[in-house]
Amino acid sequence: MSDDPRIDPRFGLSRSVTLPGPLRLDGGGLLSPVDIAYETYGTLAPDASNAILICHALTGDQHVASNHPVTGKPGWWTRMVGPGKPVDTDRFCVICVNALGSCLGSSGPASVNPATGRPWGMSFPVITIRDMVRAQAMLLDHLGIARLFAVVGGSMGGMQTLSWAATYPDRVASAVVIASAARHSAQNIAFHEVGRQAIMADPKWRGGDYYADNDPPAAGLAVARMAAHITYLSEAGLTEKFGRRLQGRDAKSFGFDADFQVESYLRHQGLSFVDRFDANSYLYITRALDYFDLAEEHGGRLADAFRGTATRFCLVSFDTDWLYPTPESRSIVHALNAAGAPVSFVELHSPFGHDAFLLESPELSRVVDGFLRAGERR
Amino acid sequence: MSDDPRIDPRFGLSRSVTLPGPLRLDGGGLLSPVDIAYETYGTLAPDASNAILICHALTGDQHVASNHPVTGKPGWWTRMVGPGKPVDTDRFCVICVNALGSCLGSSGPASVNPATGRPWGMSFPVITIRDMVRAQAMLLDHLGIARLFAVVGGSMGGMQTLSWAATYPDRVASAVVIASAARHSAQNIAFHEVGRQAIMADPKWRGGDYYADNDPPAAGLAVARMAAHITYLSEAGLTEKFGRRLQGRDAKSFGFDADFQVESYLRHQGLSFVDRFDANSYLYITRALDYFDLAEEHGGRLADAFRGTATRFCLVSFDTDWLYPTPESRSIVHALNAAGAPVSFVELHSPFGHDAFLLESPELSRVVDGFLRAGERR
Repeated sequence: MSDDPRIDPRFGLSRSVTLPGPLRLDGGGLLSPVDIAYETYGTLAPDASNAILICHALTGDQHVASNHPVTGKPGWWTRMVGPGKPVDTDRFCVICVNALGSCLGSSGPASVNPATGRPWGMSFPVITIRDMVRAQAMLLDHLGIARLFAVVGGSMGGMQTLSWAATYPDRVASAVVIASAARHSAQNIAFHEVGRQAIMADPKWRGGDYYADNDPPAAGLAVARMAAHITYLSEAGLTEKFGRRLQGRDAKSFGFDADFQVESYLRHQGLSFVDRFDANSYLYITRALDYFDLAEEHGGRLADAFRGTATRFCLVSFDTDWLYPTPESRSIVHALNAAGAPVSFVELHSPFGHDAFLLESPELSRVVDGFLRAGERR
Repeated sequence: MSDDPRIDPRFGLSRSVTLPGPLRLDGGGLLSPVDIAYETYGTLAPDASNAILICHALTGDQHVASNHPVTGKPGWWTRMVGPGKPVDTDRFCVICVNALGSCLGSSGPASVNPATGRPWGMSFPVITIRDMVRAQAMLLDHLGIARLFAVVGGSMGGMQTLSWAATYPDRVASAVVIASAARHSAQNIAFHEVGRQAIMADPKWRGGDYYADNDPPAAGLAVARMAAHITYLSEAGLTEKFGRRLQGRDAKSFGFDADFQVESYLRHQGLSFVDRFDANSYLYITRALDYFDLAEEHGGRLADAFRGTATRFCLVSFDTDWLYPTPESRSIVHALNAAGAPVSFVELHSPFGHDAFLLESPELSRVVDGFLRAGERR
């Protein structure tokens, strides 16, 4: 109980709290206590009516609009969140929580198991998207926020948003779900399994017990990241960005160095990732994603996840996103229609595949801004 | 010079020959001698006019229609090659050559460098698709086959077929190019780079010098195979075959065993592959594929690869193949049209993605059969 529960009005305040729990997990276990690291932007209204929860993606974090503590780089969604931005921190109090299972302060495999005094490693319980959402709800209870003006998320953040609306319909006025899906497909699972096998094949992984000597399975994690990264980009986007251009030389090397720019780019993506992410967290969060199937949690009918809801929904997909392609969003829209929920849906054009939701997109900004303003007028 | 150069009429005869060379390589080096392992099916006509060369894919081999010596499984294209099949071994003499750089008898990183008496490992020269074709041409010289009735290949085999037609236009009467491309795209290169990094990240790879103690980088090679295997299947095919079905249990394990059937399938694909393939060969052949750009070899204009050719062409693509999608075949057809070459092209429907060319496809059989019969009538 280390923090002051009042939301600080200053911009980009990093906080963490240890809540007693217990958090009841979908896997059957109890987690107690629960560390939750989060960041806030903007001022909470006296009646706590202007809180927006942003949910981050697989390798994202709570630093949505402020510098990353390890890399020093700007937040991952400064295009969307900030003063005068679509998620306007002059009007809203924005909260972003490091997902349960991740590695930037919230409870996860890299945090210390109080029962042993040592890092959890693979003894950390396997968690679900809904468990992440329950942990966030515990934090909101602690902060005295009964109802969210909106939950907003892309990719895995969109899944959490859907899970929020399904699990706590009375606490979510509006939900913005971007480039996401209501379940992981066989192909999604396959790519994640390649990443997990790459990590677990690295001898430095040692069954997940690698924290003591600061020598993590970096090579395996880098390969996992490289494989996943391909799925974040479109074929056309890769061709436009790199094509078959060579890297810093005029001719092929006839060797195994990075000849092509795309090889060099991927290697860089892999290598830079390992500095800021924990391999075990990658295992746990990909598992949570693969387990995600919102329909399955509701008797196999996705519409039943939203039956009788008062939440209004906004869904956005991108036409070149092949990780969570438009038909996935469309099936959610159909379910929301079947449940009688108010929903707007748009497929935006972008050459950049799944990553488009993180990039400059005036259309996306207009859609989110308009949807939130309409919520304020209600 | 271990063999009898006459083609044996018996079915499925495994042969190998050591040719003095030297083979001049695109990378600038000379390879000498050159081991070539091949298999023949059917009887060569007295005038050697009925020879069909089949070119295999990345992880394929010369055992196109006879059992694999390691796995004991039937040849990889028994649907297409055999008595009464489209490539009819009652009419044609079929030759299939283990690609240069591979690991089933032809010269490659696992074979012995005569200069040192030890396996080449990574001192084997980096080769190209055209180098593979030149080695095959050396074999045909040795066998007294001046001109091929046809060259037939899918995937990397299709690239060799294109390279044959471009490099030795007078030696190829007909060319059948299935599920292939005239160059590797940025996304193709990216997937291969993930595989190579997975192999080279395995500490057992040891710079490629792992042959002495029979302890190869199996874990890395398995991950490489898993990543590649996803690209051989379509999203829809994976969903149809596996969906989110669980593996041998009723509920999720909330652990990291293979819960989903697709995970179990992929793991099996990875593990079974390492028994029959050499990790260094995987590095060399993926490199040859990534280097492949037929237009680049001809001043940047693909049509110039075929200018004035007398070869007739048949191209086939599959609508769900996202490794070498239909537009890749179409651009080859456009180039052949621009070069004035006779070409027929069809896109076939299959739910199975790139792998469709290896599977039962009555349409593919009819196309190949009809194209070869039309060649006989000329």
